[in-house]
Amino acid sequence: MIKFIENEPFSPIQYMYEVERVLYKGKSPFQEIMVFESPDFGRVLVLDNIVQLTERDEFFYHEMLVHVALHVHPNPKRVIVIGGGDGGTVREVLKHQTVEKVFLAEIDNKVIEVSKNFLPFVASSFEDPRVEIHITDGAEFIKANKNVDVIIVDSTDAIGMARSLYAEDFFKHVRLALKEDGVFVTHSESLCFHKDVTIEIQETLKRVFPIVDLYSTPIATYPGNWWSFSIASLKFDPRRPVRPEVKGLKFYDKNVHTWSFLPKSLYDRIMSRKAGW
Amino acid sequence: MIKFIENEPFSPIQYMYEVERVLYKGKSPFQEIMVFESPDFGRVLVLDNIVQLTERDEFFYHEMLVHVALHVHPNPKRVIVIGGGDGGTVREVLKHQTVEKVFLAEIDNKVIEVSKNFLPFVASSFEDPRVEIHITDGAEFIKANKNVDVIIVDSTDAIGMARSLYAEDFFKHVRLALKEDGVFVTHSESLCFHKDVTIEIQETLKRVFPIVDLYSTPIATYPGNWWSFSIASLKFDPRRPVRPEVKGLKFYDKNVHTWSFLPKSLYDRIMSRKAGW
Repeated sequence: MIKFIENEPFSPIQYMYEVERVLYKGKSPFQEIMVFESPDFGRVLVLDNIVQLTERDEFFYHEMLVHVALHVHPNPKRVIVIGGGDGGTVREVLKHQTVEKVFLAEIDNKVIEVSKNFLPFVASSFEDPRVEIHITDGAEFIKANKNVDVIIVDSTDAIGMARSLYAEDFFKHVRLALKEDGVFVTHSESLCFHKDVTIEIQETLKRVFPIVDLYSTPIATYPGNWWSFSIASLKFDPRRPVRPEVKGLKFYDKNVHTWSFLPKSLYDRIMSRKAGW
Repeated sequence: MIKFIENEPFSPIQYMYEVERVLYKGKSPFQEIMVFESPDFGRVLVLDNIVQLTERDEFFYHEMLVHVALHVHPNPKRVIVIGGGDGGTVREVLKHQTVEKVFLAEIDNKVIEVSKNFLPFVASSFEDPRVEIHITDGAEFIKANKNVDVIIVDSTDAIGMARSLYAEDFFKHVRLALKEDGVFVTHSESLCFHKDVTIEIQETLKRVFPIVDLYSTPIATYPGNWWSFSIASLKFDPRRPVRPEVKGLKFYDKNVHTWSFLPKSLYDRIMSRKAGW
């Protein structure tokens, strides 16, 4: 059987997948895009040789990226998703009945097209009337928007092309785009392999937002696995879900919400750069 | 640079490591043994082409395997370790001042020898007068022992050669070897990749022990990562550490102890085989 060897330049372990067949391979102005069928993971989306999602386990990432922020906000109506061209994040956001509008700002239209054609399990909600798609740079899109309840960054690696979405300047514009009680969330790399990046993102967010916290979830197909999410809030406590739980999810529930936040002693050790690893 | 491709037959992803140099390669009557130096992980122990530990992250596994059980027992004096020939588990057990005797029952003397020569960071405590090494089958060793406070299984994969250490018959002998308030712990595979094995181990333990629970920890170098440990107890609550915390650990502390147990809702979903993955 053919093998796909992930080429994740910042991972000390390379992951190798069996490939049943390649469904799509192409190039956009921004990146190489591939979709293959795996005997173990179903369909797999690969950008620049890095696995972005697999059919089998994408819900760990998408549920945890979306539902923590959306459950701590009492009435999220206007949501912006930066990146996330595969559609998985928008799919989860729309499960909240309060949501009136989701703006998807994806720089690469080709990712949306390919996802519509080959990854219907994530790209299932683009036709929903509440969704508005903008093919544009997310950092620019944020500058032109106001009165947003929740902003979600669903980008590629924080260390690569998406670096600008982790800069202080970007976070300042996120804050300006949010309402006075808005919530922001972004993934922030692996606590096993890229802890220093996570710390830096947390520190940068703290210079901009009054409330910043960190939660994590296991994602076996992301290098280093123990994946972190950084959440910043202007008013609401990120650890406390306040609305009725969205039912029928595969991983997230309110107890998982609470549990996903690190114990304070561990968080402090990591942030002080005195963790043992 | 040379690459080492792990050959873990039950993992849907194969892990590939860079190899700086191979320090040892040999064969015992039981398995192939290799130690290599990795630019990212330091020294790496490999048995039958499966990574057992790396210098960089072995403490996640060894600390969490040992310190949960040892902190819930108020006065652990006599401890048996089955497997664990590299010495990492014994090293952690000896950090508890209450411990008077650790019996190490390792089937493969060659693992102990190789670890002494090439992995001094784990094989650091074999000369301690409290340690008694027995080169024997752990399942047989257990039958000949009584009045043990804590029994720890530190084996290779639950699905491979070590299968007998997960059988109901073995657990019954573990119970007989324990004092009336003893505690037993074993690793029980990945909740991402081998959830069914974890469930089976939990169910088997419940047929033998009155108190059975599950905790987990991220281990980036074990396939599927999100690693589970099954703990069984005759009297003490596994979720409640009762003794002064061992200081100076890299990952474990009392808050991590509590946090490592899954929320009940998630545990129940997994055990009911209705988890979404």
